[in-house]
Amino acid sequence: MAGPGSEQPIIVQKFGGTSVDGPQRIRNVVKHILAARQRGYRVVVVVSAPGDMTDDLLAQARELNPDPNRRELDVLLSTGEQISIALVAMALEAAGQPALSLTGLQAGIYTDGVHGKARILRVDPERVLEGLDEGRVVVVAGFQGVDPEQDITTLGRGGSDLTAVALAAALNAEACEIFTDVDGVYTADPRIVPNARRLDAITHAEMLELASLGAQVMQARSIEYAMRLGVDLRVRSSLVDGPGTWIRRDAYVDHIPVVTGVTCDRKTAKITVIDMPDRPGAAWELFSAVADRQVNVDLIIQSASRNGTVDLTFTVPEDEFAAAREAAEAAARSLGASGISTDTNIAKVSVVGAGMMNTPGVAARIFGALGQAGINIDLIGCSEIKVSCVVAREKAEAAVRVLHDAFNLGEEAAG
Amino acid sequence: MAGPGSEQPIIVQKFGGTSVDGPQRIRNVVKHILAARQRGYRVVVVVSAPGDMTDDLLAQARELNPDPNRRELDVLLSTGEQISIALVAMALEAAGQPALSLTGLQAGIYTDGVHGKARILRVDPERVLEGLDEGRVVVVAGFQGVDPEQDITTLGRGGSDLTAVALAAALNAEACEIFTDVDGVYTADPRIVPNARRLDAITHAEMLELASLGAQVMQARSIEYAMRLGVDLRVRSSLVDGPGTWIRRDAYVDHIPVVTGVTCDRKTAKITVIDMPDRPGAAWELFSAVADRQVNVDLIIQSASRNGTVDLTFTVPEDEFAAAREAAEAAARSLGASGISTDTNIAKVSVVGAGMMNTPGVAARIFGALGQAGINIDLIGCSEIKVSCVVAREKAEAAVRVLHDAFNLGEEAAG
Repeated sequence: MAGPGSEQPIIVQKFGGTSVDGPQRIRNVVKHILAARQRGYRVVVVVSAPGDMTDDLLAQARELNPDPNRRELDVLLSTGEQISIALVAMALEAAGQPALSLTGLQAGIYTDGVHGKARILRVDPERVLEGLDEGRVVVVAGFQGVDPEQDITTLGRGGSDLTAVALAAALNAEACEIFTDVDGVYTADPRIVPNARRLDAITHAEMLELASLGAQVMQARSIEYAMRLGVDLRVRSSLVDGPGTWIRRDAYVDHIPVVTGVTCDRKTAKITVIDMPDRPGAAWELFSAVADRQVNVDLIIQSASRNGTVDLTFTVPEDEFAAAREAAEAAARSLGASGISTDTNIAKVSVVGAGMMNTPGVAARIFGALGQAGINIDLIGCSEIKVSCVVAREKAEAAVRVLHDAFNLGEEAAG
Repeated sequence: MAGPGSEQPIIVQKFGGTSVDGPQRIRNVVKHILAARQRGYRVVVVVSAPGDMTDDLLAQARELNPDPNRRELDVLLSTGEQISIALVAMALEAAGQPALSLTGLQAGIYTDGVHGKARILRVDPERVLEGLDEGRVVVVAGFQGVDPEQDITTLGRGGSDLTAVALAAALNAEACEIFTDVDGVYTADPRIVPNARRLDAITHAEMLELASLGAQVMQARSIEYAMRLGVDLRVRSSLVDGPGTWIRRDAYVDHIPVVTGVTCDRKTAKITVIDMPDRPGAAWELFSAVADRQVNVDLIIQSASRNGTVDLTFTVPEDEFAAAREAAEAAARSLGASGISTDTNIAKVSVVGAGMMNTPGVAARIFGALGQAGINIDLIGCSEIKVSCVVAREKAEAAVRVLHDAFNLGEEAAG
C-alpha cells in the first residue's frame, strides 16, 4: 500500500564509524539526514559500528580465545551496528523526525553462510519500504546480514558500503551517498600535489582503479558491486558541506577526460627470478607456488629470451612480500634458475582515465614526462583505463607531480 | 533426530551480569558449565549483559533523547546479552567444549510487543535442541525475545531469570540453576542474624514471600513464573562451590518446617485516614484513588467503628509514599474524614513458612516473643504462609533476631 510520501525519490545515506562515535557526531549525522528530507527525499540510512567498538570487541574475544569461531565472532561484532542504529533512530526522533531502526535481518539482507566475509545473495526490503511509507527515516545496520539458518553474518571490510549499495539497488534509490572524512575524490593526493583538484564526477571503472591504487575513500569491492548493480554513488564529507564527487555509470558522466587522476602506491615490492629456463610451464610453476601462499601478484614483466633463459619480474603488496619471496626462492631452485633478486624500495605511480582507451599517445606522453624529469621507469603495466609505472620509492612523489602537470589536472589548468 | 547425548538430562544454568564482566569471570562461568557436563548433563546457559553495560547504554540513549522510544531502547539494550553469549561461547570452545550462541530470536523466545517489559508467549527451542544434539553447550541471550513482527523485545528487570525458567520448562530440564553472588537463601539476613542458616530447600511459595519481602536473590516475578511452570530452581554462588538452596515444588521438599525464615523490609511507610465515615464504598473510594497513582498497597487494617467512623491504616513501599499521601489526603477531604497521619519510621518483619498453614499457634508465638522483648507491634498482616508485623524501624533488627531465636532457626539449633 503506497503511503503519503511514496512518490518521493529514495536516497541511501551511509555513515561510517567515526560519524557515529559520540552524541555530538550523531547529531551531525541527523543534520545530514534532515537536509535530505528537506530536499524532498525518502531517506534510508546505513551506519557502521561506533568508532573503535569493533576493535574493542575483537580484543575481548582474542583474550578469551586466540582463534575464535567465526560464527561467534559475527554474533559479537554485529552488536556494534545494532547500537548505532538505535542511537541514530533515537536522535532523529529527538529532532522530531519519526525513525525506525532495522538490523540486517529485519532489513532483509540475506547472505551466504561464510562468516566474516559473507556475500549478499538477496535483499528483501519489505520492512524498509513499510517504514518509508509511514514517513519514517529507516536506519539500517551496515556490515551485517543473516544466512539461510538465521545466523548473523558479517560482510567483511567495507561491509557497510556494501549494505548501502545493495539497499540502493533493491530500493531503486536515486543515489547512494557515502559520507566520509574527505570531501571527494581528487586528481591526486593533495598532500603530494598541492593544486590537486576535486573531481565532480568519475566513472565506476575509474574509481575502481583509483580505489585499488591507494585512494582510501572506498573499498574496491564496494565500487565493483555498485558498478555491477548500476548504483550511482556520491562521496561526500560528513564534516563540511560540499558537492563531493559523483561516481557514475559512464553514460551519466558528461565529459570523460582522457586522464582523471594520478595515484601512488608505496606499499609494493618487486621480485625477479633470474635466468629462469624459457620452457612451457615454468611461469605457471612459479606463479602457482606464489598463489599457494595467498599472495596477489600485480604487475608481471618477462625479459626477452637469452641463451634459453628469461628473467621474470613481478610486484606484490609489501605485506605479502615475505611469503612471496619464500615461494619464489623455492620455485627458482626447483626450476633450476640462477636465483632471485628483490627490491622493496619501489613505488607504483598510475595514471587513470576512462577516456584513455580512445586516445592514442597517452603512454608516450607519460614516458616522455617522466624521462624529461630524470625519473627511470622500472616496470610498466597497462589496463584499458590505466598506465602504471614502477619507480624508485624516493622518486614517487616527484613522479606524481610531473604526471599531474603533464596532463593539466591542477586547479589553475581547470580554471 | 536424536544425537549422541540425547538421553542425558538437561540442566539450565543462568549467570547474571557480574558473572560475565571480564575474561576472568567468564572463565569462571566456563568452569561451572564444564562441571555440569562432567556430572552428565546437557547444558543450556542463559547470560545477562556484562556488568554495567546496560547502564552505560541507557546513559548514551538519554543523552541523545531524554525520552527514547521503547522499541529503539530494546534494540539498543539487547546488544549487551548478545556480546555475552558470543564471549561465553568462545571461552567454552577455548576450553575444548563445542558451543553455540543463540539470540532470543534464534532460541525461539517469542513475546508480545510490549517493549521494555514484554511477556513470553511461547518458547520454540528447536535450535537449542539441535545444538544440544550436536554435543554443544547452547548459550542463550537472557532478557530478550522477539515479537510477532520480529522486533526485538526485552523482558524487564530480572528478565534473564525469566528466560532461564521459560527454557527450563520448554526443554523439560531437570532444573534451572541461578548463579548469583550469595550462596543460597538464608533463614534471615546474615548481616542481622549472625547464626542465620542456609536453607537446603524451600518451596516456591515460601521463596515468593521471601523475595517480595526483601531477600534480594531473585525477582518475585521469576519465582512466580517458575512456580506456575513447575520448574525447580537452585540458587547457587558463582564464586564459591556449595549446594546452594533448592526452590522446589512442595512435593519435592522433604521436611517442610513450620517456619523457614524471617525477613525484614525497612522500605515501607504507613498512612492512616482518621475518622473516616463508616459507610459502604468509603474504603473503595480511598483505595481506588491510591491505585490511580500506581501505588501498591501492602497491609490494610481497619479499626472498630466508633460514632459511625473508623480509622483506616495501610502501608506502601517507601518510594511510593509521596504519591500515596497525596491520594489519601484528597480522598480524606472528599470523604469528610478528619485528616490523615503518616509514619515513615517503620519496618515490616515477616515470618515465613509453608508448614504454618497446618500448624496452629504460630501467630501467638510471634506476638509472645516480640512482647517479651518489649517490641510493640503496630500492624499485623497474614497470609497462609506468612505473618507480618509492622514495628518501629529502630526495633526491626532486634525483632528479626528475637523471632529467629523463637523458632530455633539458627545454626546451633540445627546442629
